[in-house]
Amino acid sequence: MDEAELKVLQEEIKAMGDEIRSLKTEKADPTLIKAKIAAMLEKKKLLGDGQADQGKFVLKTPKGTRDYGPKSMAVRESVLKVVVDAFKRHGAETIDTPVFELRDVLMGKYGEEGGKLVYDLQDQGGELLSLRYDLTVPFARYLAMNKISNIKRYHIAKVYRRDQPVMTRGRYREFYQCDFDIAGQYDLMIPEAECLKIVDEVLSKLEIGEFFVKLNHRYLLEGMFAACGAGADQFKTVCSSIDKLDKVPWCEVEEELIKEKGLTKENTEKLGQFVRLREFNPSMDSLDLLDKLMEFEDLSKNPKFKKGVDELKFDPSLARGLDYYTGAIYEAVVPKALEGVSLEANGEEQKGLPVGVGSVAAGGRYDELVGNFIGPTGSKGKEKRQDVPCVGVSFGIERLFAIMEAKMQIEQMQVRTTETQVFIASAQKNLLQERMKLCGQLWNEGFKVEMAYKANPKLLTQLQYCEDRLIPYVLIVGERELQEGVIKLRNVKTREEQDVPLAKLADILRSHLNSL
Amino acid sequence: MDEAELKVLQEEIKAMGDEIRSLKTEKADPTLIKAKIAAMLEKKKLLGDGQADQGKFVLKTPKGTRDYGPKSMAVRESVLKVVVDAFKRHGAETIDTPVFELRDVLMGKYGEEGGKLVYDLQDQGGELLSLRYDLTVPFARYLAMNKISNIKRYHIAKVYRRDQPVMTRGRYREFYQCDFDIAGQYDLMIPEAECLKIVDEVLSKLEIGEFFVKLNHRYLLEGMFAACGAGADQFKTVCSSIDKLDKVPWCEVEEELIKEKGLTKENTEKLGQFVRLREFNPSMDSLDLLDKLMEFEDLSKNPKFKKGVDELKFDPSLARGLDYYTGAIYEAVVPKALEGVSLEANGEEQKGLPVGVGSVAAGGRYDELVGNFIGPTGSKGKEKRQDVPCVGVSFGIERLFAIMEAKMQIEQMQVRTTETQVFIASAQKNLLQERMKLCGQLWNEGFKVEMAYKANPKLLTQLQYCEDRLIPYVLIVGERELQEGVIKLRNVKTREEQDVPLAKLADILRSHLNSL
Repeated sequence: MDEAELKVLQEEIKAMGDEIRSLKTEKADPTLIKAKIAAMLEKKKLLGDGQADQGKFVLKTPKGTRDYGPKSMAVRESVLKVVVDAFKRHGAETIDTPVFELRDVLMGKYGEEGGKLVYDLQDQGGELLSLRYDLTVPFARYLAMNKISNIKRYHIAKVYRRDQPVMTRGRYREFYQCDFDIAGQYDLMIPEAECLKIVDEVLSKLEIGEFFVKLNHRYLLEGMFAACGAGADQFKTVCSSIDKLDKVPWCEVEEELIKEKGLTKENTEKLGQFVRLREFNPSMDSLDLLDKLMEFEDLSKNPKFKKGVDELKFDPSLARGLDYYTGAIYEAVVPKALEGVSLEANGEEQKGLPVGVGSVAAGGRYDELVGNFIGPTGSKGKEKRQDVPCVGVSFGIERLFAIMEAKMQIEQMQVRTTETQVFIASAQKNLLQERMKLCGQLWNEGFKVEMAYKANPKLLTQLQYCEDRLIPYVLIVGERELQEGVIKLRNVKTREEQDVPLAKLADILRSHLNSL
Repeated sequence: MDEAELKVLQEEIKAMGDEIRSLKTEKADPTLIKAKIAAMLEKKKLLGDGQADQGKFVLKTPKGTRDYGPKSMAVRESVLKVVVDAFKRHGAETIDTPVFELRDVLMGKYGEEGGKLVYDLQDQGGELLSLRYDLTVPFARYLAMNKISNIKRYHIAKVYRRDQPVMTRGRYREFYQCDFDIAGQYDLMIPEAECLKIVDEVLSKLEIGEFFVKLNHRYLLEGMFAACGAGADQFKTVCSSIDKLDKVPWCEVEEELIKEKGLTKENTEKLGQFVRLREFNPSMDSLDLLDKLMEFEDLSKNPKFKKGVDELKFDPSLARGLDYYTGAIYEAVVPKALEGVSLEANGEEQKGLPVGVGSVAAGGRYDELVGNFIGPTGSKGKEKRQDVPCVGVSFGIERLFAIMEAKMQIEQMQVRTTETQVFIASAQKNLLQERMKLCGQLWNEGFKVEMAYKANPKLLTQLQYCEDRLIPYVLIVGERELQEGVIKLRNVKTREEQDVPLAKLADILRSHLNSL
């Protein structure tokens, strides 16, 4: 952390402190205050790390990265389980690719801006390598290299971007991506529909609140831009301006289009009519919106626009990520923060946006990316492009993690980081072998069991460990009980105890665990 | 691939071809011949990639890496499930760390040889970074940085070593590690015992055949070396020679010790008496072996040796990986190849060793690594070292993957890469919406369902897909059936069909699937 960053952080912490004080004065909701304090402590931790930085050798993770501790991992595993279950329910296979690729494979795939953010490996003799920037280009390389023309696969892995990190808002340099893609010569919109079904299943299951899905098509955008006098070469740059419409007002977008992108006022006024149609008609359904657009002669006469219309209903303000998309594009958006969730400390890329607001899944059709790797085949003059059409969706899994973490904090849900069912304790000294023997038996029966790693642990320490770790049952080994062939079974929550015959231990334990 | 490597590969393929021809002449076991041919085809694939290399831009993964396709991933997931289940049964949490660390964190941790194999990232402005070389140093850094003094965690992730790859024998530059470690001030040998119990549970469950566990202690080795006149500064280098005893005969080790390590003939003769004791007494149990060693006065009078003896029974020829180990060390070894497994194409680092022979898990006690990161604390003159004692075990998970892949090939087990339970097919045209609706209903009920992405797929193509993919059931949508409120349920294996009322579909499907 450099001095400028340190200063920003110090100021942020001061502002948070002020806010907490005024909330307390206003006697605001204690849960909210608690959450704000937790957020401030997180920042103070960053500050501690940052300050230590100034001096001698410091233990830290590289800039823009962090460790995932047991609690974060538990939340991550629970979210990923929901996503993977959905992928498997839809018959997907999984693959994995190396964390680095030949630099040539990535070159020219992410535009000028993206290219600057790729991590290169040092030339230590041999090939020039770079860390993967996303999972889509490695997927296309995998298909082309192995001559695979149809597959339905998911891939969950970390990707790397040398971006300016804003760790307090969840923008990291190392982060997970979570992609599902269908490759193959299939009929239009059937794979797209499945991708959207998966988005619906995952977001519903995670209970992150209301969300809606935006849908558009590259041809509709091309048709609209052409009707407004923007050339085909301006497609990407006009898109990137339009895509800002969900964050900034039209007047700013219009100014950018005129001053930076070279459109005339006449051009932008026409374009504004099209792309702001949803804004002016918030309750109109997509079909009617489409009819309204078709009333413009410039659009209804454009063959690409008509083709796009034939293929779908849509939201004309969605224009994101069009670098390699060739058909339908879609995005799932969470419009409102979860009740009570207003931590800034997690998961957000947009300054000031509360957790849980923004895009949580996005994707579309990209029919030419794999073909780019294969190139034309056949003899000269008869060259034929081998396309492998693809449709996919990528979950904003880091944002989903952050939403779930915030949700658990708000709902004061306790996160278990282990699955231990039973703890073997002892009430007296010199029972190490008996504890180990019992552990061994229960492990062999498939129970999840722990014991203390001390020869003579104190009973209270052992019971305290179980309460802290939310372990439901304790078996207390005692000499008297062993002689009588029984063992004490204690319910950690209710503190009820009963003597259980050793011969029936596994059965009784199993029935207790099943009733939890 | 350079020309020399290409040539080696071409010669290997020729030799394999010759062997296959002679096996055929000898009318050898067809399964063996089939396996040999599969291995040769794998190599030919490498050759293809290698030759293409010579020319223009080639699609490949970086040297020493490979993609994991759906079949490999399915095997990997099944092996990892056994391992993770064991870790969870023993109450472990999991953590994750970034794929790269500050270069300073890794420096000096892997000896001179290891240091050369670390991948560095290019200096693109900012910190100097390197890819992780193992999971143990990042774990120690995590503990020191977060001031964690006790934790039981596992970590499964890829590590990176710029070693000379021997991909045909499974030595890669990117590979998984799978570590379980217990950190904390606990009583000796209790955590060690749990690590060995986990090794036993995992290897038994995987049914990879007979294995045995070697056990030794750093103090025993130090005591033996001291008794033979080797100085403390020679510890590492003498260890590395002794550790070769499982691969080369004593005379070669002795020659190395004299010529390269500077021991005298008198030294090595004494050392040989100690470390070859197991070799001369193969059936003697560890306790007796220990007594025999204690008969040597040089050893019984050495305080370190005695301390080691007090702590365990052991195998005096095990000396591996001692860089940071401070106490007990252990290793699980598979002595014999699985019946029928003799593919060279998988998982082996030792030339000529058949799959499944060698070390499959190893670990020990390392009490000082975390302290190295923390350094002494307290005011000058009263400095106190803060140690976090650790005990761990690391599975040779890549070798376990290779053994399981070979085992499945030998046993001709079919690997399913998806979990699809039901396929929704149609016998006639124009039933796309009906298929989609039914899919949606079954997905919502939690079934794993697929359908064709074509508007009008052929029935035979759909049934063929199910047979290829081992999908157990097909539902065939037909107009007549829909009118009657039923649907045809087909068992893919037996080809039996029955009409099922749509209202009872979910229940009937569930009971069929439960009976599989």
